[in-house]
Amino acid sequence: MSGNFLALAQPGVQQLSPYVPGKPVDELARELNLDPSKIVKLASNENPLGPSPKVLAAIREELTELTRYPDGNGFALKSLLAQNCGVALDQVTLGNGSNDILELVGRAYLAPGLNAVFSEHAFAVYPIVTQAVGADARIIPARDWGHDLPAMLAAIDAQTRVVFIANPNNPTGTWFDAQALNDFLQGVPEHVLVVLDEAYIEYAEGGELPNGLDFLAAYPNLLVSRTFSKAYGLASLRVGYGLSTAVVADVLNRVRQPFNVNSLALAAACAAVKDTEYLEEGRRINERGMLQLQQGFRELGLGWIPSRGNFICVDLGQVAAPVFQGLLREGVIVRPVANYGMPNHLRITIGLPAENSRFLEALAKVLARG
Amino acid sequence: MSGNFLALAQPGVQQLSPYVPGKPVDELARELNLDPSKIVKLASNENPLGPSPKVLAAIREELTELTRYPDGNGFALKSLLAQNCGVALDQVTLGNGSNDILELVGRAYLAPGLNAVFSEHAFAVYPIVTQAVGADARIIPARDWGHDLPAMLAAIDAQTRVVFIANPNNPTGTWFDAQALNDFLQGVPEHVLVVLDEAYIEYAEGGELPNGLDFLAAYPNLLVSRTFSKAYGLASLRVGYGLSTAVVADVLNRVRQPFNVNSLALAAACAAVKDTEYLEEGRRINERGMLQLQQGFRELGLGWIPSRGNFICVDLGQVAAPVFQGLLREGVIVRPVANYGMPNHLRITIGLPAENSRFLEALAKVLARG
Repeated sequence: MSGNFLALAQPGVQQLSPYVPGKPVDELARELNLDPSKIVKLASNENPLGPSPKVLAAIREELTELTRYPDGNGFALKSLLAQNCGVALDQVTLGNGSNDILELVGRAYLAPGLNAVFSEHAFAVYPIVTQAVGADARIIPARDWGHDLPAMLAAIDAQTRVVFIANPNNPTGTWFDAQALNDFLQGVPEHVLVVLDEAYIEYAEGGELPNGLDFLAAYPNLLVSRTFSKAYGLASLRVGYGLSTAVVADVLNRVRQPFNVNSLALAAACAAVKDTEYLEEGRRINERGMLQLQQGFRELGLGWIPSRGNFICVDLGQVAAPVFQGLLREGVIVRPVANYGMPNHLRITIGLPAENSRFLEALAKVLARG
Repeated sequence: MSGNFLALAQPGVQQLSPYVPGKPVDELARELNLDPSKIVKLASNENPLGPSPKVLAAIREELTELTRYPDGNGFALKSLLAQNCGVALDQVTLGNGSNDILELVGRAYLAPGLNAVFSEHAFAVYPIVTQAVGADARIIPARDWGHDLPAMLAAIDAQTRVVFIANPNNPTGTWFDAQALNDFLQGVPEHVLVVLDEAYIEYAEGGELPNGLDFLAAYPNLLVSRTFSKAYGLASLRVGYGLSTAVVADVLNRVRQPFNVNSLALAAACAAVKDTEYLEEGRRINERGMLQLQQGFRELGLGWIPSRGNFICVDLGQVAAPVFQGLLREGVIVRPVANYGMPNHLRITIGLPAENSRFLEALAKVLARG
């Protein structure tokens, strides 16, 4: 046997294309020789408020323990989350971002010969974690850019082990209501784990979107995944969590790395959970920014996909890649979504009012040039 | 099919026993109602020096970017490591601790029907990452507590894809020299990836231990893994790395999570790489502490396994578990190693002089009580 370590890799791994993140500010600054402080990044659905002072204080306090391993059980954070979410401690799984939770599900429950069902235009990590373990992806055509839940239900077969659904969905921002979720969960066979990805739920709460936690007691095959990367503003630190039955949490906790979440993330997330003020300010900024961008699109004669997240997909009515490039040259980073089957759209994270204006001005300029 | 989500988990996962970490100080304080500041923890091979001021400064500077995702490519840290280690940028893989690197290797190259070879009394993560993907573990009896490299070589067959070796080894502290490593690498078939775990190499450099990096050019099936958790004092932050051919690094980079290393870890590691003063002070403290503990053991009439790490296994000549429990009651946490097939030993991390004294006094007290 030869020493070709690509050919020796597992078949699923050989075919794997890594996730493409939003372009970092420093990278664009290097490439185009721009001043990083002048660049506006609305590409990764990051919180535009900047760090919460309470979170920063918690991190500074934890710095004395830098040489110590994290608490591998995440006792303090899990206790807070269990209390806040109305579940028992042993129903919580902590992850290195909710990406980690999604991956743990794939590694625990998927394998060659099995399949995962998810929607067209859904989060890129679902196909990646499916592919990484050599399972099959059943990608169900979207309806009006959102999940076609009845069609997803119909696609489930005896080899299906996982269904990924997101509410609201990234990158489209689309959503479904409580009735639709309940109908779906009623129909899913009990051997199929439903992963309800609520990475953006904090922006949508109180509206027509259901709270996934309300369904946990009735459906033992439901896992709700959430993150501190968006509304809580901790993307740099990597912390997310899954809520499920204790059985599923036990399985995921066996698979996870013993110290998957770092100490500063644990301390920061504990402070963030209690910082309701930051969360509310973030929601207010997001609502205002959403209206500002829609008004701007209207003035430019552009359509968009209605969104309940902290981002919105604008329809350029033409291939978006050159506009994306034009915006980069203006020092504005947004997110191309051609790899999501949306070549004519760009996904824009809602920023601060001044960032949104900067983007809209740059967009007008690039389109006028076009 | 029933909704038993333990039975539905992959066979390897069902059998998985999670890694047992060193007991956290807070946990012992809670359990025995002790003052945490009076507890001495010598259980997890953590750096007793506490955080480096240069590292702390780098972290504080990075805090302004808390709401941003990390640089998924880790460009700055990889550039520094490539330069320091004399390899190209595309030969580096960053991990959420070197635990992540070990796991990525397992997920990329192992599967049911394949096997990994490693030694008795070797790091507990090798069997875990092997088991997690359903591969077989070939555990080769140790010789004088260390790796029996010729026997490990003889155990490799057509289904072997990975060999894990550690130099020095944890938890035994044993080591092999350049000649032994070279003879071993010469004999390993080219389809088998040799993972040389150098988590503790910074404590052993300049002695009889080889530097694994010197063998990378000659052996394309070699991967050297290293960590910032020990000599660099960043255990809380989770950052390690692998050095290999670009082909192996490309495969591991496909498998890793896009943001597996957090931003503060990246910034801290960049500062740590340059902080040679901290590294040297840590080595000095370690050498002194090693002599102090050996002298203490001698006075108590106890044997030990000679070690090149920042830890030492003392032979109690009796089952160690009750002594471990007795030490806990004295507020001293060390590491039982019965799960490593070493029921009569305890592994002690080298601490500051006062911590080592505290431990030795407590040990004398517990042993006298009998």
